Amino acid sequence: MRLLLINPNTSAEITNHIVATAKAVARPGTEIKGVTGRFGARYILTRAAAAVAAHAALDAYAREWGGADAVVLACFGDPGLAALRELARVPAVGMAEASCHTAAMLGSRFAIVTGGRRWGPMLEEFVASIGLGRNLAAVKTLAPSGAEIAANPDAALGQLTEACLSAVSDDGAEAVILGGAGLAGLANRIADQVPVPLVDCVAAAVTTAEAMVRLGPWKALVDSHAQIEPVPTMGLGAELGALMGRPIP
Amino acid sequence: MRLLLINPNTSAEITNHIVATAKAVARPGTEIKGVTGRFGARYILTRAAAAVAAHAALDAYAREWGGADAVVLACFGDPGLAALRELARVPAVGMAEASCHTAAMLGSRFAIVTGGRRWGPMLEEFVASIGLGRNLAAVKTLAPSGAEIAANPDAALGQLTEACLSAVSDDGAEAVILGGAGLAGLANRIADQVPVPLVDCVAAAVTTAEAMVRLGPWKALVDSHAQIEPVPTMGLGAELGALMGRPIP
Amino acid sequence: MRLLLINPNTSAEITNHIVATAKAVARPGTEIKGVTGRFGARYILTRAAAAVAAHAALDAYAREWGGADAVVLACFGDPGLAALRELARVPAVGMAEASCHTAAMLGSRFAIVTGGRRWGPMLEEFVASIGLGRNLAAVKTLAPSGAEIAANPDAALGQLTEACLSAVSDDGAEAVILGGAGLAGLANRIADQVPVPLVDCVAAAVTTAEAMVRLGPWKALVDSHAQIEPVPTMGLGAELGALMGRPIP
Amino acid sequence: MRLLLINPNTSAEITNHIVATAKAVARPGTEIKGVTGRFGARYILTRAAAAVAAHAALDAYAREWGGADAVVLACFGDPGLAALRELARVPAVGMAEASCHTAAMLGSRFAIVTGGRRWGPMLEEFVASIGLGRNLAAVKTLAPSGAEIAANPDAALGQLTEACLSAVSDDGAEAVILGGAGLAGLANRIADQVPVPLVDCVAAAVTTAEAMVRLGPWKALVDSHAQIEPVPTMGLGAELGALMGRPIP
Amino acid sequence: MRLLLINPNTSAEITNHIVATAKAVARPGTEIKGVTGRFGARYILTRAAAAVAAHAALDAYAREWGGADAVVLACFGDPGLAALRELARVPAVGMAEASCHTAAMLGSRFAIVTGGRRWGPMLEEFVASIGLGRNLAAVKTLAPSGAEIAANPDAALGQLTEACLSAVSDDGAEAVILGGAGLAGLANRIADQVPVPLVDCVAAAVTTAEAMVRLGPWKALVDSHAQIEPVPTMGLGAELGALMGRPIP
Amino acid sequence: MRLLLINPNTSAEITNHIVATAKAVARPGTEIKGVTGRFGARYILTRAAAAVAAHAALDAYAREWGGADAVVLACFGDPGLAALRELARVPAVGMAEASCHTAAMLGSRFAIVTGGRRWGPMLEEFVASIGLGRNLAAVKTLAPSGAEIAANPDAALGQLTEACLSAVSDDGAEAVILGGAGLAGLANRIADQVPVPLVDCVAAAVTTAEAMVRLGPWKALVDSHAQIEPVPTMGLGAELGALMGRPIP
Repeated sequence: MRLLLINPNTSAEITNHIVATAKAVARPGTEIKGVTGRFGARYILTRAAAAVAAHAALDAYAREWGGADAVVLACFGDPGLAALRELARVPAVGMAEASCHTAAMLGSRFAIVTGGRRWGPMLEEFVASIGLGRNLAAVKTLAPSGAEIAANPDAALGQLTEACLSAVSDDGAEAVILGGAGLAGLANRIADQVPVPLVDCVAAAVTTAEAMVRLGPWKALVDSHAQIEPVPTMGLGAELGALMGRPIP
Repeated sequence: MRLLLINPNTSAEITNHIVATAKAVARPGTEIKGVTGRFGARYILTRAAAAVAAHAALDAYAREWGGADAVVLACFGDPGLAALRELARVPAVGMAEASCHTAAMLGSRFAIVTGGRRWGPMLEEFVASIGLGRNLAAVKTLAPSGAEIAANPDAALGQLTEACLSAVSDDGAEAVILGGAGLAGLANRIADQVPVPLVDCVAAAVTTAEAMVRLGPWKALVDSHAQIEPVPTMGLGAELGALMGRPIP
Repeated sequence: MRLLLINPNTSAEITNHIVATAKAVARPGTEIKGVTGRFGARYILTRAAAAVAAHAALDAYAREWGGADAVVLACFGDPGLAALRELARVPAVGMAEASCHTAAMLGSRFAIVTGGRRWGPMLEEFVASIGLGRNLAAVKTLAPSGAEIAANPDAALGQLTEACLSAVSDDGAEAVILGGAGLAGLANRIADQVPVPLVDCVAAAVTTAEAMVRLGPWKALVDSHAQIEPVPTMGLGAELGALMGRPIP
Repeated sequence: MRLLLINPNTSAEITNHIVATAKAVARPGTEIKGVTGRFGARYILTRAAAAVAAHAALDAYAREWGGADAVVLACFGDPGLAALRELARVPAVGMAEASCHTAAMLGSRFAIVTGGRRWGPMLEEFVASIGLGRNLAAVKTLAPSGAEIAANPDAALGQLTEACLSAVSDDGAEAVILGGAGLAGLANRIADQVPVPLVDCVAAAVTTAEAMVRLGPWKALVDSHAQIEPVPTMGLGAELGALMGRPIP
Repeated sequence: MRLLLINPNTSAEITNHIVATAKAVARPGTEIKGVTGRFGARYILTRAAAAVAAHAALDAYAREWGGADAVVLACFGDPGLAALRELARVPAVGMAEASCHTAAMLGSRFAIVTGGRRWGPMLEEFVASIGLGRNLAAVKTLAPSGAEIAANPDAALGQLTEACLSAVSDDGAEAVILGGAGLAGLANRIADQVPVPLVDCVAAAVTTAEAMVRLGPWKALVDSHAQIEPVPTMGLGAELGALMGRPIP
Repeated sequence: MRLLLINPNTSAEITNHIVATAKAVARPGTEIKGVTGRFGARYILTRAAAAVAAHAALDAYAREWGGADAVVLACFGDPGLAALRELARVPAVGMAEASCHTAAMLGSRFAIVTGGRRWGPMLEEFVASIGLGRNLAAVKTLAPSGAEIAANPDAALGQLTEACLSAVSDDGAEAVILGGAGLAGLANRIADQVPVPLVDCVAAAVTTAEAMVRLGPWKALVDSHAQIEPVPTMGLGAELGALMGRPIP
């Protein structure tokens, strides 16, 4: 089985970090290939950067799909996931979406702990958009961004643990997600200090993608994620332009 | 990896049917062991039968757990799932819950097709209880029960397909679940006639349980599913009584 | 008028306590008969105990109905209420359900004060399941269980009052329910210290049941609580087995 | 026990009709006194008429309370109920509110059948406002108004029955309310043709009021329905002006 | 363009204050005419006063419409707005409704700051009734009433600012409404101390009304706000009686 | 006052059409400047095209803002609106958002009529995301796209009218929005055949933007739409790159 892991920001270091974490959790027979956004922000901390990343994710898929069995969108917050699901011929799994559904099966109410203050409302809106708003106990954001946490994880472990504990005792969370590419792999390091299940977002996405592939093949023919009629485009990357339509003559 | 698959009704035929379907979808290294309810209704078609089945599921777990890595509650509607999650030391996965979360990741709105008219409101209540009520396009119930469908699947394929097509075109479903132990394995037979992803409930439960085991170990220490204080009991099966407390002296 | 009051835990002391409270509030012409669960936990403090109690409630109804005009399910949290409503030929009233609807008519938002920490999420889920989630200001749980409070009510009055006052000033509750069989009769003792209406759960259930009887007779013929087709069962109490179906030959 | 039954429209015939129905259902010891609105529309069929009726209900209470143990607001739709609850020193019960809570305890989803097309959205908004929107299967409105139905009930029985049956089979209602003063007393005449519980709105209000009185005394001291600070008023009926404040000097 | 601004309380000072604020924000060509309630409370601080004000607003419209292009209901909380919309032949805009929709377009979640403690639940109920409950971050009420704030605004600026800042930092508000006729014009004075958009309720209502007039003409012919059939009335102001029906002969 | 009207698809004809409609509705003193997307699909009919359009809208703003007093995002569905609001220094108004809030003030429940079948679920998700899901009576999509309707409006008037009438009588809509740039200006042509208020989406957006400017200046300093910290970017249009951060060194 082959998975294409799309990091829609422009930081290859983050891509490498996610790929390494993904490989550690994937089945032996699963190949993981990472691709980095060709344009946009190095770190996604704002609504504007997320909007650009949605486009970059589609562009990356068009360039690098190559027949992979599933696609993982590896930015917590899943910019462009519905569009990617529409465009792709194979299952598209979002890191945040997979984490939230996994967490909802572990406890009635779950929390998200992540880096970057502005992700708070953005993630609340995201969870509501997938229908799980009532299950969300809290989003706890730390001041350092996910990238800063990835750069110096030891310095952040204490804050992360504290945020998880507060989510449990103050907000009634029965499961906690460590959200964000930069936090991948840290759940194991603090799990024994957190008294409820702790979800690693990369691990949740990879196992969900593997399950989707085994359950499939799945491509809707008629719904709002089905293959689309071609439409003239301009100014797009050649592969995305080819996928979406034909160049304006 | 070992999975305990609990059929909380009292029909061993259904247990065998589910186990066979589960084995067909499980990873090579996954062992599946089935257990049948020791008391209750042969088929679960009513609220009363479901209430008894919740108790029977706990009883079956207490008798037959034996160190399995995860437990699958294999009655679509998941009677007693939250209690089983509380009681069990390993992840407990419900067939309906896993199917609904899987379907919600395939399309924004999903439908359930199942056998037995009375399951309609019961399943609507169930989906609302796990927070996905807004994502539910429809529950379509056929007159024959799941057991009747299992006994003569060929006769039901036409009705099932028709119900799936109606869910798509009349209710806007973007994914459809074939719900019920008796319908296990039938998704493959009609998938090419249904233009949106079709979820087999046993397959969804097994792949979700396998994923949970790989992501874990997960047992809450403090939330509403955490291990409990012993409490005196009476009149229970010996193993369940031992698990829940101590006999009244 | 005759009411059957089902205590689905296995503590006869609690049954006696509820019956005494119920008799104090019932109309002169109302006869109250109590029945205790034949199996299960002595006190219901967990999801597992509640799941078993649902079965025990059905079993108790089958054994002891005897033509009563209505049935009161006297465990706050109402385990098995929908199933009991389906099985019973007369109105079935839950102590929690009746209290919540009563409280919602006294103030736009109500709170529940009860004993036993684990009841918090369980009651929030219950209130949401009957559609009144938006009206719930808070569930306040005390550390001592309902049974412990019943055993030494004087020691608990201060804590109960404090929880009620906090529900009013911190959570905006406009009515408060004292929930739990063990708290029956205590509302009168602290009502003058609580500045909003205080609902005694046994009193609410009994008056609601009396009203239902006068408004009835009510047994649905077609909905999801209607009388059921017989189904083969095994391993049940003789009376419940007879009510639900016929023994497997 | 004494109940004040406020008909906030200006039709004394309707008042007499409701009082007669109320007396038929009330306990032997319950005295019923009716009062008719002093100003406003003869029949309440519009939002404007309902807004005036809210004022008329307060005016009627101020004039005629006389120490009654509870007040019943006897216009289905309950115009001014929250204000009446604030103003009154005793429990105030709305005919629609009591019916909806009663129906919600009889079936998970209930419908309302009433006269007058414009009541459709008004009642949907009302049910949502008391928190029971998710439990509402449908509002079915007949073309004749409640007053027209009251004037010639025999002519309406067929239509009423048909609307009830449609609510059950088309909308999944598990209980049906016959709403509107003009429909009081008709539930008994068609109950045997409707396969789910049928709620008479006057009967529901009277039994609920009787229950409230027995559970009380209940007057909030601090919430949004508590007794109010006097405020200068002008142009009101003398009694209402006296109750709300003091005349502007 | 001519706007009729209805103050449904009986304080001409408040009417003058709102009219002055409205004129300051209105377009040069917009004429503003104010009308004061003919009966009711001098200040609306309670549910009862609001219920009477709804009637007074209809009465004022009937007396003073005179062909204005739109009507503004100038009591924050909008008592009688739906009825006024039904009765009026031109767009009817509520001060609270216009403010909430404006605020919702400025930030995903908004707060309301107002005077008078009892407005808290009343405004929460109002916002839910127009469908924006999920967007409401908080209602912050000050102890002084709107009238008291209008009488001595300088004394209140500090408290108002503090409440706005708390709404932002404690409740996550992304926009704040200063609600209440008495607070009209104060937004400008504290805007530079509040780090999110601050909405003046009179300004929001006037600009919304101006926009409605330009987009119109708009009077529904068939919905629940359409022109009504005449109905006999009694005891109303002559103009309102004429508008709603004909006097009882 | 100057408004920048961003058409985020790549069709200059559509831009010209919207600008002409906007000029017809704008105040005399309002200048309208249109800008067309520099890349992406000629018509936005899919999730993928909408995702790219969000980026294109930001790019267009960065290139062409030039000190305009407000920005109108002129693609019904508002791709990238929240990001644009974050990035822009002046109010950003979405055509769909402004239409929905306007419609919600005209009737309790509104419908949207638009071209292109795939917009159905996308618009339902959009309306839910701005909190107005409960107010949405229906989205009615015609088979021809908005662009096709714009190319031959006469042929579409019948279908549009029929869809509006169905929204009113079948779905209970109390106001209807004609959504889509291609439908701009058509509301006037069918308004007299539709018995409820009909909202032109361009007109709603322009009047809302004009109102926002008069109520402002409004730029949040702290919330999730506030000005952002610069972040390194690559591969963006020069102006957007400059606005979002600095080029990667």
